[in-house]
Amino acid sequence: MKGDDIHSIDGAGRGQIPPDLLIQGGTLLSMVEGEPPLMNAVLSIKDGRIEKIGAEEDFTDPGYRHVDRIDATRGIILPGLVNAHTHIAMTLFRGYADDLPLKTWLFEKIFPLEAQVLNPRTVYRGALLGCLEMIASGTTCFMDGYFFQDETIRATHEAGLRALIAQGVIDFPAPGVPDPRENLNIATDFVKKWEHFSELIQPGLFCHSPVTCSRETLTRALEVSLEGPALLQIHLSETLEEVQTLMEKTGRRPVRYLQDIGFLNPCLVAAHAVHLDDEEIALLSERGVKVVHVPESNMKLSAGIAPVKKMMEAGLAIGIGTDGSASNNDLDLFLEMDTAAKLGKVSTMDPVCLNAREVLTMATAVGASLLGLENEIGTLEKGKRADIIVVDLDAPHLRPLYDPYSTLVYSASGADVKDVIVQGRVLMRDRVFMTLDPEEIMAKVKEITGDL
Amino acid sequence: MKGDDIHSIDGAGRGQIPPDLLIQGGTLLSMVEGEPPLMNAVLSIKDGRIEKIGAEEDFTDPGYRHVDRIDATRGIILPGLVNAHTHIAMTLFRGYADDLPLKTWLFEKIFPLEAQVLNPRTVYRGALLGCLEMIASGTTCFMDGYFFQDETIRATHEAGLRALIAQGVIDFPAPGVPDPRENLNIATDFVKKWEHFSELIQPGLFCHSPVTCSRETLTRALEVSLEGPALLQIHLSETLEEVQTLMEKTGRRPVRYLQDIGFLNPCLVAAHAVHLDDEEIALLSERGVKVVHVPESNMKLSAGIAPVKKMMEAGLAIGIGTDGSASNNDLDLFLEMDTAAKLGKVSTMDPVCLNAREVLTMATAVGASLLGLENEIGTLEKGKRADIIVVDLDAPHLRPLYDPYSTLVYSASGADVKDVIVQGRVLMRDRVFMTLDPEEIMAKVKEITGDL
Repeated sequence: MKGDDIHSIDGAGRGQIPPDLLIQGGTLLSMVEGEPPLMNAVLSIKDGRIEKIGAEEDFTDPGYRHVDRIDATRGIILPGLVNAHTHIAMTLFRGYADDLPLKTWLFEKIFPLEAQVLNPRTVYRGALLGCLEMIASGTTCFMDGYFFQDETIRATHEAGLRALIAQGVIDFPAPGVPDPRENLNIATDFVKKWEHFSELIQPGLFCHSPVTCSRETLTRALEVSLEGPALLQIHLSETLEEVQTLMEKTGRRPVRYLQDIGFLNPCLVAAHAVHLDDEEIALLSERGVKVVHVPESNMKLSAGIAPVKKMMEAGLAIGIGTDGSASNNDLDLFLEMDTAAKLGKVSTMDPVCLNAREVLTMATAVGASLLGLENEIGTLEKGKRADIIVVDLDAPHLRPLYDPYSTLVYSASGADVKDVIVQGRVLMRDRVFMTLDPEEIMAKVKEITGDL
Repeated sequence: MKGDDIHSIDGAGRGQIPPDLLIQGGTLLSMVEGEPPLMNAVLSIKDGRIEKIGAEEDFTDPGYRHVDRIDATRGIILPGLVNAHTHIAMTLFRGYADDLPLKTWLFEKIFPLEAQVLNPRTVYRGALLGCLEMIASGTTCFMDGYFFQDETIRATHEAGLRALIAQGVIDFPAPGVPDPRENLNIATDFVKKWEHFSELIQPGLFCHSPVTCSRETLTRALEVSLEGPALLQIHLSETLEEVQTLMEKTGRRPVRYLQDIGFLNPCLVAAHAVHLDDEEIALLSERGVKVVHVPESNMKLSAGIAPVKKMMEAGLAIGIGTDGSASNNDLDLFLEMDTAAKLGKVSTMDPVCLNAREVLTMATAVGASLLGLENEIGTLEKGKRADIIVVDLDAPHLRPLYDPYSTLVYSASGADVKDVIVQGRVLMRDRVFMTLDPEEIMAKVKEITGDL
C-alpha cells in the first residue's frame, strides 16, 4: 500500500533505522506561512533533523516503538525562538544600573564597570548564565555582539545552543582590545579562528555604531565581512542624540551616510533602527539590510519606538531581540514578543498591527533568515534542523486555549517552556537542564559580582 | 534585661503564646517610604498580623523554636501585590478575540460571548481560575468589577484572597441584569448582602463608563456608594472615541462632566484614565479621586498611553491593574509593573520616570490605599495584616542581585513567586496551592470553554 511505503521510506518503517527521538501529543505550530496548527501531532527527529511530522497513526510502525519520547500532550510544539540581538555576557550587569539616561547608563555605569570586571574568565561565566537563561526560556538560537568572544563561543558550545557570535569593533579602547587600532585585526582573526569550528556556531563582526566607529573602521569591517563571508551587526539609530551627532559630523542621517560609504549590504543586520525617516527605511529595504526590533530596551532607556509597521510595509525582514540583560533586564523572548505586539498597537493606534502570529513569525522564521538559516531552522518542516521547544500549557494563566498563537505571545512567558532541543539534542527536558549545571553557573557568577 | 523584656512583650518570649508562622532569611522590602532593604530578615506572624520584623538574633527565644517556618533564604520577602483593576471571571475569554479594535472586540466579540456563556456557574468557575492565577503570581488583593458577583465573592472566599468586589452597573441589558432599570437595585442589594460577610472582602459598585451609564444612573450609584459606604469604580476616558462621544452628548470632556454632575469623590476609583487634559488631571486631584494605570490593556487595545507622570506630579494616588485577561492577556502584576516602568520612560522620553521602586510602591502601598486599606496592608510593618509574598531568586534570570527593586520589576515574573500569605493564612507554599485545587479548576473551565 502506498501510504505504508511512504512511511517506511520517510520514517522508521520496516528495515529502517529508527529515529532518535519522538515528540508526541500537543498542538504543533510549524510556523510555515499559511499552515494551520496541527492537533495531537507527532514529530520524529533523526540525526539532528526533523524526519517526519504527522498524527499518531503515522507512527504506528514497530520501528517507533522503542524510541525515546518527549510528551507534549498538554503543550504546544513550535520552532525554538531566535533572539536576534543580544550581548549575553552582560547578564553580569543585570540590574546594576537602571532608571538612568542611556548616555549616563552607558558611559558612567556600564563602560567603566565593563573595563573593571570583564576578562575572559568573567565573560565565559556571564555567557554561561545567559545560555542557561535562554535555554530556560525557549531560545535556541541567538545573535551576540561583545568582547572576549572566544569565551562566548566556548560557553555556547558547552550549552549546545545555535548562534551567530560576533566580535565587537569600536574605536575606543575596549575590553580585550586596549588599542583600538587593533580592533579589526582581532575581529579578522576571530572570524578565521572559528569559521569551521561547529555547525551550530558562526563567527561574525559587530560594529558598535556609526558614531563610535569611524568611516574607515566601518569600511574595513565590511571588507572582512564580505571576505569571510561573515554577518556584520551594528547598532543603528538607537537614539535621537546619536542621529544628531552623526548629522553634525557628516551632514547626513545615519542610513544615508552608511549608504554613501557603501556600507549597506545584505550581510548587514541593524539592531534598534528606532529613528528612521521614510527615505532611510526605503534605502534599508533596497539594499537588503536586515533589522532587529528591540522594543523593551528601547522603552527602558527611552531610546524611542521603532517604526515597525512602516518597516514591514517596506518589506524589511525584522527579527526580535532582547538586547543585553543590563538594559531589559532579561533574555525572555516570550515577554519581548508580548511587548512588541502591544507596543506596535499603541504606537500606531492600530490594534490590528503586529498580530500574535506575525510577532511569533518574527521571533522564529524571520529570525532564522537574519542568520541566513531560513532553509535550516525557523519552521518545523521535514528535513530541517530539529531546533524545537515545547511549551507546557498546564498552568492557570494559559487556560483556556482558543488560539495557540495568542496564548504564546500574550499569556505565556519563558517560564512555561518545558523542553528545548537544538539540532536533535535535548538541552532541557521537563525543565531539567541537560548540558549545563545551573547551581555551579549561578554560584560562579556570584563570586564575580559579589551580589546580595 | 531590657532587650529580653521587649522580645517577650513583642514576640513569642517566655510565657507568651508563640506566633503562628515565621518567614526567615532573604531580603525584606517593607515598602515603607525611605526604609532600605533588610537583609537576612525574619518576620513573625500571629493572628493574621505581622508580629515582629527583625534579624535572626531577635528570634532566639525558645518560644520561636517550634514555630512553623517558611524558608526565604534565597528570596525576597515583600507585601503581596494589589491588582487595582480587573474582571477576574474574564479568564474564561482569555485569547478568544485578540488583535482587534476595542469596539469590535467589545461589541462584536466579548459582549455577545458574555451573553451566551455567563451565568452564576460559569462566573464562579472563571473567578476561581482568576484566583488561582493571582495566587500563583503573587497578587494577594484585587479590585474587581463584573456581573454575577455573588459568585466572584464565593470563589475569592474559597481562595482566601483579599478583594474589593463590585457589581457592574450599565444601562444595557447585562449578564444577570436583563432589565437595566434594575441595575442599581441589584447593586444596592449586593452591597447590603455582603458588607459584613468577611474581613477580607468588601462589596462595591462598578459603573461601566460615563458613556454607557446615564447621568441618573451615575448619580444614583454615587448615592448608594456614599450610603454603604462602598467604593465606586468606573472606566474613565479609556479611548478617544469615548471622550468624543461624551463631548457630543454633553458638550464637555468626561472629567469636567463628572465634576459638574457631582460625581467626583474620594470613594471613586477611575481605571484607565488615558485621555485627560491638564484641567481634568487637576480636577481629579482636587476631588481626591483615585486612579488605576492599566498599561498593557491600553497598549493591546490601542486605547493610548495614560499620562502617569503628570498625574503623579499632580499628587494623584495611582495603582496598577491588569484589566481582565481577555484584554491583557494575563493577571501577572510583575509583568504589568515592568511594562508600566518601561512605557512611562518611552512615552515621556525620560528614562528616570517611573523607577522600579516607584512602580513597586504603586502595586503595593498605593494599591492598598485605593481600597482604603493603607493602615492594614501594602507595607510590611508590625501590626499590619500579614499579606506577604516570597519571590524565589534561585533562577538564572534573577541573577546577579544588585538591587532587589530592579530585580522584581525588570527581571521577575509571577512565575518566580514561591509563597503567598493573606492575613496570616498560607495560600501557596513552595508553589503548591493550599486552598484551591488547580486540576479541578482547570478541568471545569475546559468543560465550559471547550477549548483545544
